[in-house]
Amino acid sequence: MEVARRLGVAPSTVSRAFNTPRLLRPETVERVRATAAEMGYAPNQHARALITGRSGAIGLVIPDITNPFFPPLIRTAQREAERRGLGVFVVETNGDVVREEQLVQRLVPQVEGLVLASSRLPDARLRDLAAHIRTVLVNRDVAGIGRVLTSSREALVEGVRRMHAAGARDFCYVGGPLLSWSEGERRDAMRAMERELGLRVRYLGVESGTYADARGLASDIGPETRAVVAFDDIVAHGVLDGLTSRGVRVPQEVLLLGCDDALPIETHPRLSTIRLHIERGTASALDMLVDPDVRDERLVVEGTLELRETT
Amino acid sequence: MEVARRLGVAPSTVSRAFNTPRLLRPETVERVRATAAEMGYAPNQHARALITGRSGAIGLVIPDITNPFFPPLIRTAQREAERRGLGVFVVETNGDVVREEQLVQRLVPQVEGLVLASSRLPDARLRDLAAHIRTVLVNRDVAGIGRVLTSSREALVEGVRRMHAAGARDFCYVGGPLLSWSEGERRDAMRAMERELGLRVRYLGVESGTYADARGLASDIGPETRAVVAFDDIVAHGVLDGLTSRGVRVPQEVLLLGCDDALPIETHPRLSTIRLHIERGTASALDMLVDPDVRDERLVVEGTLELRETT
Repeated sequence: MEVARRLGVAPSTVSRAFNTPRLLRPETVERVRATAAEMGYAPNQHARALITGRSGAIGLVIPDITNPFFPPLIRTAQREAERRGLGVFVVETNGDVVREEQLVQRLVPQVEGLVLASSRLPDARLRDLAAHIRTVLVNRDVAGIGRVLTSSREALVEGVRRMHAAGARDFCYVGGPLLSWSEGERRDAMRAMERELGLRVRYLGVESGTYADARGLASDIGPETRAVVAFDDIVAHGVLDGLTSRGVRVPQEVLLLGCDDALPIETHPRLSTIRLHIERGTASALDMLVDPDVRDERLVVEGTLELRETT
Repeated sequence: MEVARRLGVAPSTVSRAFNTPRLLRPETVERVRATAAEMGYAPNQHARALITGRSGAIGLVIPDITNPFFPPLIRTAQREAERRGLGVFVVETNGDVVREEQLVQRLVPQVEGLVLASSRLPDARLRDLAAHIRTVLVNRDVAGIGRVLTSSREALVEGVRRMHAAGARDFCYVGGPLLSWSEGERRDAMRAMERELGLRVRYLGVESGTYADARGLASDIGPETRAVVAFDDIVAHGVLDGLTSRGVRVPQEVLLLGCDDALPIETHPRLSTIRLHIERGTASALDMLVDPDVRDERLVVEGTLELRETT
């Protein structure tokens, strides 16, 4: 309290500088810790252990474990939980809202907290859940709940600007699962660029998100298209394969931008994509989960544009 | 018991025909079920529920969640556990034996059973564990413990025979993590073919199993090499990239065979590989875990050769 008073910050800020520093700006962490050290202050470890020692587990809900975006999220959640003496129950919903509801109902009595990644549950249901059990969302933006968003918006805007600067006017956006927040964010960013730059954008979608479906859909991409933005790298590679098999050369005739940068191998040509910082986002989500001060907090982790050979 | 007597099989075989049919030959299942139906026999559901209703969880230990071989295993383990009312704690060891021991010690008091995939623990430690808690191994062959092996042996032998028939005499085997059972099996199969066909085989290894390390190691593959067998598809693609960047053409100058067939995207040229039936293997592992009759059982699920464009 004295540290907080001396610095003119909230007591929770001081607590966070020790327990969940990722939720503060680095300068703030530095300033609080330095002042605390000067004043001989030692952090109270009880706040950190708040969640520990009860059922000893949290539930992690993801849509699709075979999508390479999610394993690094699971890994980070497990390591961060372990650091706090907690186990992790991982469940997979297949992106199906009914299955997600069933699995969440089964998890709730067994766990002390939930991390829901790319949840498809309705906003009202999520708020209701969060009122009964500590809940943090990853890549779902519902006011009133702690949430971390690994955003592609700024990088996508920068990528589209560069493709526009290279002469592309006719775009195609090939989206993924309609109910995912990421899909909404990417579509919205494309719409904003469409208006701002006067692009012509065709919107297609691969609800399944699979390579094979994306490959099949590539035949709907018309000959006027000069640039394709894909929901993720799997969709991008399916589109690339579909285009190439029709004799369309990437990047000579069509520029291509993916998203996620999570594939375990490189491909040829090397895909230009958006790297999402999912490890950082997940670590912050675990911080929020154990931080009693977090009720309604929104943390955006911006992705970065990785320009390689397809743009 | 009457069904067993009539058919001249063990009572446990009858129980399995209803509870864990994957552990029997399909003909046996058919025969038992038909006889039981004739005799008006209904299976006792208690055996099935043996494990249920206690801590309600099993522990699943894997080395590396970002290796695409493991997510389908996790998915199947979760679905099969769920069917029996059990949750799954997934933990990742990084292929490190010390970390595996720590995680297993932490899991044991929390779970009713363990599935250890590609375990690196010593045989004696695994037997000791299995004496204290129901334990099933996947891709580790220790007598005295229930174990499922997703084998590449027959398919690898067939693949090498075909490459030999196509004229290849100088081979290179690029292995993966030395302590993994799969690596041992593949190296042994290569040695057997070396002797049988009089091949010249050079043995290299990528302990990390990463794409980048495999790519780097490709420069050690000499110009005499006419065929490369790789530990898995990630190593194969790293090698492919390394060879291609040196101007070596695959398959014109060097034939290449991978293993696992678990990548989420296709690549060009499409990789010849061995499909391992990990879902089937994992489902059988869960069957073994809940089957009180399983103490020392060894089930081999053979992979199948998928010939594409690199051989």
